[in-house]
Amino acid sequence: MGEVHHASGTTSIKGTGVVAGVAYAPAVWVRPRPALPEIGTPVAEDARDQQFERFTAAADTVAGRLAQRAETVEGVAAEVLTATVGMVNDRGWRRTVKKNVAEGHPAEYAAVAATQKFVDMFEAAGGVMAERTTDLKDIRDRVIAELRGEPEPGLPDIAGEGVLFADDLSPADTATLDPAHVVAMVTELGGPTSHTAIIARQLNLPCIVAAGPALRDIVAGEPVLVDGALGTVTRNADEESSRTAVAQFRERAAVIAQWRGPARTSDGHRVQLLANVADGNAARVAAGTQAEGIGLYRTEMSFLSTSTEPTVEEQAAVYRKVFDAFPDSKVVIRTLDAGSDKPIAYATLAEEENPALGVRGLRMARDNEGLLLRQLDAVALAAEGRGEDAPTWVMAPMVATESEAEYFAGLCRERGLTAGAMIEVPAAALMSDRLMPHLDFVSIGTNDLTQYTMAADRLSPQLAYLTDPWQPAVLRLVKETCRVGELTATPVGVCGEAAADPLLACVLTGLGVTSLSAASTAVAGVGAQLATVDLATCREVAAAVLDTSGADTARELAREMLLG
Amino acid sequence: MGEVHHASGTTSIKGTGVVAGVAYAPAVWVRPRPALPEIGTPVAEDARDQQFERFTAAADTVAGRLAQRAETVEGVAAEVLTATVGMVNDRGWRRTVKKNVAEGHPAEYAAVAATQKFVDMFEAAGGVMAERTTDLKDIRDRVIAELRGEPEPGLPDIAGEGVLFADDLSPADTATLDPAHVVAMVTELGGPTSHTAIIARQLNLPCIVAAGPALRDIVAGEPVLVDGALGTVTRNADEESSRTAVAQFRERAAVIAQWRGPARTSDGHRVQLLANVADGNAARVAAGTQAEGIGLYRTEMSFLSTSTEPTVEEQAAVYRKVFDAFPDSKVVIRTLDAGSDKPIAYATLAEEENPALGVRGLRMARDNEGLLLRQLDAVALAAEGRGEDAPTWVMAPMVATESEAEYFAGLCRERGLTAGAMIEVPAAALMSDRLMPHLDFVSIGTNDLTQYTMAADRLSPQLAYLTDPWQPAVLRLVKETCRVGELTATPVGVCGEAAADPLLACVLTGLGVTSLSAASTAVAGVGAQLATVDLATCREVAAAVLDTSGADTARELAREMLLG
Repeated sequence: MGEVHHASGTTSIKGTGVVAGVAYAPAVWVRPRPALPEIGTPVAEDARDQQFERFTAAADTVAGRLAQRAETVEGVAAEVLTATVGMVNDRGWRRTVKKNVAEGHPAEYAAVAATQKFVDMFEAAGGVMAERTTDLKDIRDRVIAELRGEPEPGLPDIAGEGVLFADDLSPADTATLDPAHVVAMVTELGGPTSHTAIIARQLNLPCIVAAGPALRDIVAGEPVLVDGALGTVTRNADEESSRTAVAQFRERAAVIAQWRGPARTSDGHRVQLLANVADGNAARVAAGTQAEGIGLYRTEMSFLSTSTEPTVEEQAAVYRKVFDAFPDSKVVIRTLDAGSDKPIAYATLAEEENPALGVRGLRMARDNEGLLLRQLDAVALAAEGRGEDAPTWVMAPMVATESEAEYFAGLCRERGLTAGAMIEVPAAALMSDRLMPHLDFVSIGTNDLTQYTMAADRLSPQLAYLTDPWQPAVLRLVKETCRVGELTATPVGVCGEAAADPLLACVLTGLGVTSLSAASTAVAGVGAQLATVDLATCREVAAAVLDTSGADTARELAREMLLG
Repeated sequence: MGEVHHASGTTSIKGTGVVAGVAYAPAVWVRPRPALPEIGTPVAEDARDQQFERFTAAADTVAGRLAQRAETVEGVAAEVLTATVGMVNDRGWRRTVKKNVAEGHPAEYAAVAATQKFVDMFEAAGGVMAERTTDLKDIRDRVIAELRGEPEPGLPDIAGEGVLFADDLSPADTATLDPAHVVAMVTELGGPTSHTAIIARQLNLPCIVAAGPALRDIVAGEPVLVDGALGTVTRNADEESSRTAVAQFRERAAVIAQWRGPARTSDGHRVQLLANVADGNAARVAAGTQAEGIGLYRTEMSFLSTSTEPTVEEQAAVYRKVFDAFPDSKVVIRTLDAGSDKPIAYATLAEEENPALGVRGLRMARDNEGLLLRQLDAVALAAEGRGEDAPTWVMAPMVATESEAEYFAGLCRERGLTAGAMIEVPAAALMSDRLMPHLDFVSIGTNDLTQYTMAADRLSPQLAYLTDPWQPAVLRLVKETCRVGELTATPVGVCGEAAADPLLACVLTGLGVTSLSAASTAVAGVGAQLATVDLATCREVAAAVLDTSGADTARELAREMLLG
């Protein structure tokens, strides 16, 4: 995103900071991918079987190595690795390689061509499938390297500490990443929702993505200073002051590690801190943090992974896993947020010109009400037996009008469920006064709300300067929602990346937000920050930030007022 | 969109009303398209030349007939027909037919296959090109009919009056449509921006689009009642009351025809009524109406039609044609609003996931500032010599932040131009207080503002219930913009379909909008309506409408309060 040369002889490269933190260590480059083989001369017919044996041996070795590694790690990392092993062992892929070998291609080229076939298919399918092509290419590269007797591509062994540099990281790369050695990650490509960013958040590693081609000049072993909050990589930084910055950051990190909820401002104003999860595993991880409950349970996963709709009982079993992780706490479950950008074979429109502005979320119920009704039945079934101390709240995505809010609330009440709505369409925030009387609670989805308010795709790297939750326009909509929330005594939560930013969390508290839900790793940082500031200051900063010209000035002003 | 059977024995079919008006006349179906030939047995080699001669003769006859018709009409209709003649004579197309004939296909099939080739190419190109495939198919059908000695497809001759029914209408169909015989148009397909809708607005013919397959039951000659404002086609309507409704509508139409600007409410509050145009021809047409000037000159046309950027002088020559149509009046020119949905070969991104949320409008200047600078130079050059009574205002599309407004205004001022911004991104409306101090005027683009505020694609037929400028959420943003406009004495215009709706025009006036710009045919209807109501009533209706639950209730309430 740009390179700035300073008079001091230092150079800073600016990217998109996705996890705050300061690190100073030598640069380590992820081992380069092997060059792919060209189509070569045909293999003699009697040597073809041997080529397939070579391939099978290499693939088995790669699978075995990944499986072994899966046993040494836990949780998501183990799942990612196991899923990757499954892909290496995929019969369709191996059969295609066999076919290619039978046609006379050497093992290396046969594997490349077979992979390309699946990559093309996945890309044509789009959406979640297209995102898995990185995994496919990763497997291909490991097998090719094995066939050639080259070292396995991916993470190098790191002696001591290092800042990891890469164009982008695959799930298999990051699954075995050891935070004892990797102190920060910086990628040329990717965005705030890329796999790299997700993993960095999980590991709470300072991370910068989309730093651009300027990174390529950095040589392995060169010490670099990384500031994940500012999104800067500094070359030739003064060693002493760099080490001081790291020490200060670690002190702060220690304070965060010692912080215990529930969250309060310094003068005792309570703010509920909750976790965003997508399945039972993540919920169990969240239960081990200071999160008081689940503020956003995204239910897409159980729908995306099957070709037919899961039954009410199947859904309930999945939901129960999340509920069970928080048997005595609030869980907020969001109904299916699918659309042509997150396609579900049996429910969504095939293609739309602008999927983000299309038939998604609650809008799908107009043509397919049964899907929503069955999901609500499943939620009610899963929530049976949960006590009063463990409320189950249900909210709909993409509510835009009063009649949608009223409709959804009616369906929830028929099933004894507490009814809410995401506030992510600007109209919903603007019409809070008409929506809230129908609802028990609302939750502001800052990611989509920002996208629509700024009319800028949240996934577009060219428009990242606009899609920033610090945009005062977005915060004004938050304020309007909170104003009505206070008038009608309706709890107003925020879920979305905004809730993970400790400074922005203070601003949101000042605006009147009553709960914040983010990745569970972000909870303690937010809680520790809130503990340092009183409510009056939060309100003062919030008011000041609403009257700034843009996201950068808003962020800077808050930083100045809150950190001095 | 649905069929409702009433107890009285009448049936109403509901579509999207695009031009208001009431008509009662027998149904007339556009003559059906010929069935397309299947691939047949190959033509003997010595007969192939004769097949191409047959084709050439038929194509020449069709071209000649269209050219002759072009001479009998004027303006846009003549241009459309002349363009169609150009397509019939297209050398690439004729050459492809020749090639197909040489391969042994009969003339009919050769023409069909050649057309399909171009249709596929145009569709792959997308955008404006894809929209031209209707024209290609229309030409194909005319030539096929001619080859078979069948009557020319398209508009039938109408004795007396008739309501025209069709699946959709091609430009060549509508170019010769005679409003003396056609009293209304209803199509099964299409949308508010389809060719049918555009032509209906130009001719000010009551028109309903997207009425769905229920239309197909209507038989030729059956009398139907069409209400363009309600979007309803009524079958078996009582003849007497239908004729009364038509007479009332005609009375109102007569009042509109006699209305003379400038527009004022009944108590003398001035509202400037302006026209939206895209070229000099439309500006000349507008100059013949009661429009006081141009409120939105869309400049895309001169950029879309060339493969390289037009020079400053070429651009200025194009702009001058519009300025010359209003030598003594205000002209508001909008800088290029291109993006990946309106692609410009030499400037825009190839493809985006959500083009409407992409790099479009002013955002393009970040990577391609020269294009904007040269356009502003061209505007300044074209505006040279225009007097103080003929102000030239320039505005940028897709402004979202204060810094964008400041940047654009700076560029305009350097060139002595009056600087404004479109308010079409919700953030721009929400941040009016920060934007307006930098600007001389703003103009609210209700079409896009509605799209983003409701997070619903304005072109999606499934979401038409959301993308309605009567949405109170949108009107609240208009109100906020007007509030700041009044505080800072900044003129606030509205351009977009909202400004063409006489009732909504009263609401917008009540909200504080100072000028309304719409299709020039809509100007008198709006002016006549404003003349019947005082400002206090406009304000009262506006306040009431802001507190309704949705677009339909807002529209109904305004109708009740304004029409009684």
